[in-house]
Amino acid sequence: MTTLPTLIPLLEPIRPDLEQVVRLLFETTAEVEEPLGAKLRSALGGGKHVRPALVILVGRLFDVPIEPFYKLAAAVEVLHTATLIHDDVVDEAPLRRGRATLHVTWPVGATILAGDYLLAQSASLLADLERPRVLQVFADTLCTLCRGEIRQMFAAQQERISREAYYRRIEAKTASLCAAATDMAGVLAEAGEAHIAALRRFGLELGIAFQIVDDVLDFVGDEARLGKPAGGDLRQGLITLPTLYYLERGEDDVAVRRLLSGQGDAAHVRAAVEAVRASGAVEDALEEARAHARQAQAALSPLPNNAARQTLHDLAEYVVERNR
Amino acid sequence: MTTLPTLIPLLEPIRPDLEQVVRLLFETTAEVEEPLGAKLRSALGGGKHVRPALVILVGRLFDVPIEPFYKLAAAVEVLHTATLIHDDVVDEAPLRRGRATLHVTWPVGATILAGDYLLAQSASLLADLERPRVLQVFADTLCTLCRGEIRQMFAAQQERISREAYYRRIEAKTASLCAAATDMAGVLAEAGEAHIAALRRFGLELGIAFQIVDDVLDFVGDEARLGKPAGGDLRQGLITLPTLYYLERGEDDVAVRRLLSGQGDAAHVRAAVEAVRASGAVEDALEEARAHARQAQAALSPLPNNAARQTLHDLAEYVVERNR
Repeated sequence: MTTLPTLIPLLEPIRPDLEQVVRLLFETTAEVEEPLGAKLRSALGGGKHVRPALVILVGRLFDVPIEPFYKLAAAVEVLHTATLIHDDVVDEAPLRRGRATLHVTWPVGATILAGDYLLAQSASLLADLERPRVLQVFADTLCTLCRGEIRQMFAAQQERISREAYYRRIEAKTASLCAAATDMAGVLAEAGEAHIAALRRFGLELGIAFQIVDDVLDFVGDEARLGKPAGGDLRQGLITLPTLYYLERGEDDVAVRRLLSGQGDAAHVRAAVEAVRASGAVEDALEEARAHARQAQAALSPLPNNAARQTLHDLAEYVVERNR
Repeated sequence: MTTLPTLIPLLEPIRPDLEQVVRLLFETTAEVEEPLGAKLRSALGGGKHVRPALVILVGRLFDVPIEPFYKLAAAVEVLHTATLIHDDVVDEAPLRRGRATLHVTWPVGATILAGDYLLAQSASLLADLERPRVLQVFADTLCTLCRGEIRQMFAAQQERISREAYYRRIEAKTASLCAAATDMAGVLAEAGEAHIAALRRFGLELGIAFQIVDDVLDFVGDEARLGKPAGGDLRQGLITLPTLYYLERGEDDVAVRRLLSGQGDAAHVRAAVEAVRASGAVEDALEEARAHARQAQAALSPLPNNAARQTLHDLAEYVVERNR
């Protein structure tokens, strides 16, 4: 029944596990009125399944029964999807993974409830695991995610143009959930504290690398592959690492300045994307992503050395070399 | 520092407890950017504190340390406030407790994030209690709340005009959270299963009575006291118990029919409110609320008989005799 058409090759060995996760994902929508249920299944099944894979691979690292990790993996993906659904309203994003976002085709009220419902389902899956520490990580992560978005919304434009603000934002937005996934999986595996700390570090660095690459792809990707128009961040006045490198180089461009002051139009976006690309800032940002991926790989060293660890290692490479 | 200006007299004996709860409520906003933090504190502190009181009183029923009940009581009120903030967007309500709702004065994105943040804070307070069963009740309740709202949104108008649909809706919307409050408090007190079941029943029946009275006040209350205009439910095409009694009496009124078909204007609202009031349907609905309050009181019988139980008993009476 369940399909994983977008599975990346290095995750093929855990395809049967991920199919169990997708089955649980779809079960969370069983009691939702149609056609909202179908919309939610589409949102839940549409990603690259990197976060559930992190959970499964941590389970496979240790010699423990794998079934509880299916629930944890599903909970993490459901939480991720819930935050995407709400963020798309917050950011007024028209497209996500090449499809119209929920709030474009549905009343905003239905979109809010859909996200809330998935948050509840995520909490429910986690509560079933009967591990208070897992729930504490979940709650902390949701706080971090929301606080990051609120800070972003209230911060003055000038405060956003710094490397510190950029890292704070991507840690809250992306890396916190990857870190939570590997952390919670370590707790569920009853790993020792040193192992849990290593796993958390791995998830955090991988998440940072992942988000930097996402931000790079916003400059160099094409719309067909990204599933959304390129230059979207600049269009929103969002400063990401390539733009920071560009500005740090002392480059000055009227289109970029216009966009940062919130006054640019579509032609300015195209010109600014070109200016940033031509400056070499994109390559600098990508190199920085690779450094974080290497730090993720280094974090794995104290962990059991087996096939699952190798896949986690390769996953860190994949996130920086992918093109979508 | 904290104030409880709206405390109802019968809760005076637990005022010191409720002040501790309000302190925890306000702490949840400590890391939120201003002026959003102030808005949230206003939303958190503005209610009648009936739900936190339920939790405290259950704690006082049993001979157990009270401190953990402060966290649970705060978590319940934070969850309640989070759902109100989101529901006000869903229902497009302009006023709540006499103040402009958050989404009227803030971008919808900030309102969504504010609600999400409070959901996270609620989960965090509960996770601190390290009782998996408490978190399971929390997650189930959030699912029930969302599913009730989603069902309401997708149900055809005709399906809504039944006593069964009305009870299903108010149980999901209001009674589920009151039942969760007393249920979780029973679990936290390590009460026996029979006591927990009795507490849940009490919360459920009290919540039903509470909501019926809210729906009655929408017909008989005045705007100054309610903090929102009367007739709001009919204006939204929402069928509540007084209207159901009115229709069951075989009454026929052009204004009511217009509103139920979604075509009424302000004059129709005033005329319909008058027609329902004049029919005696309001008294019938109030009598039904009293019956549920008595069932709540009856549910208390197996529980320890002390001052806290007497206050719970009196609280069931208060919810039906209040005028705001």
